Amino acid sequence: MTAAPDLDHMRAAARLALRGVKSNQGGPFGAVIVRGDVVVGRGFNRVLGTHDPTAHAEIVAIRQACRKLGTFSLAGCTLYASSEPCPMCLAAIHWARIERVWFACDRQDAARAGFDDAFLYEEFERAPRDRRLPVAQVFREEGLAAFQAWLAKPDRVTY
Amino acid sequence: MTAAPDLDHMRAAARLALRGVKSNQGGPFGAVIVRGDVVVGRGFNRVLGTHDPTAHAEIVAIRQACRKLGTFSLAGCTLYASSEPCPMCLAAIHWARIERVWFACDRQDAARAGFDDAFLYEEFERAPRDRRLPVAQVFREEGLAAFQAWLAKPDRVTY
Repeated sequence: MTAAPDLDHMRAAARLALRGVKSNQGGPFGAVIVRGDVVVGRGFNRVLGTHDPTAHAEIVAIRQACRKLGTFSLAGCTLYASSEPCPMCLAAIHWARIERVWFACDRQDAARAGFDDAFLYEEFERAPRDRRLPVAQVFREEGLAAFQAWLAKPDRVTY
Repeated sequence: MTAAPDLDHMRAAARLALRGVKSNQGGPFGAVIVRGDVVVGRGFNRVLGTHDPTAHAEIVAIRQACRKLGTFSLAGCTLYASSEPCPMCLAAIHWARIERVWFACDRQDAARAGFDDAFLYEEFERAPRDRRLPVAQVFREEGLAAFQAWLAKPDRVTY
């Protein structure tokens, strides 16, 4: 984990963001993942190019780094993002065990460019009943069997 | 968008969750995406099998549905999940424009099975400075050029 931010890595993330815009792959977002001084993942937004709403720069970079390193854990890594990670990407960063994030532009910059990141953060701050998207629990018993099978599995790998 | 939950779709999500556990692909989670009465996406957790920390059941199902339909928008769709979507998946559901979510087990059930979903929700409720993961803004100017290029792009597609 790098203690201080490295301008070169942020410049690389910014260059990726520009490349994504110029190649018509998606919005103006780039990300770089670094372990020590070594870049292990790079990505720019590909939502439009791949029809994948989850193909944000950070997610693309996480998937690339994990493929390259052959593991689902990026413990010890730092992520540089040209713009503040949205809640999806921030949670993905948690799941990937990335330990530090530096971002250049923030959610207000993204909002001025027409992106929903700030709205999404506000949704997460609301109580579930006050959110725009209806999300509700039903048929709880249906889901329990899979948890029971998981807990009974002697060779389960926790992640 | 289905107004009332359909037990058959939740059963399908639960079967997928069990299949994922049995095939050693990942944790006990399944998801189904429905448009009208037609299933357009299915997924189970593949974090272990693919070394991809973002391969949660909901994300796998969203990617499959978008690939199948050739669009990044799942407007009009409902998602059934065998367990409550984590913040990553919930935000992905927003970005995919899915309009309704039904889940069976909840974050407390997931916590009892050893998963971090509840912890992650608590992280999002904290102020950034109180979170465990350090996330900070630096070199803002580096990121701005990509936003300017985006806003100057006459053929940009908003999403």
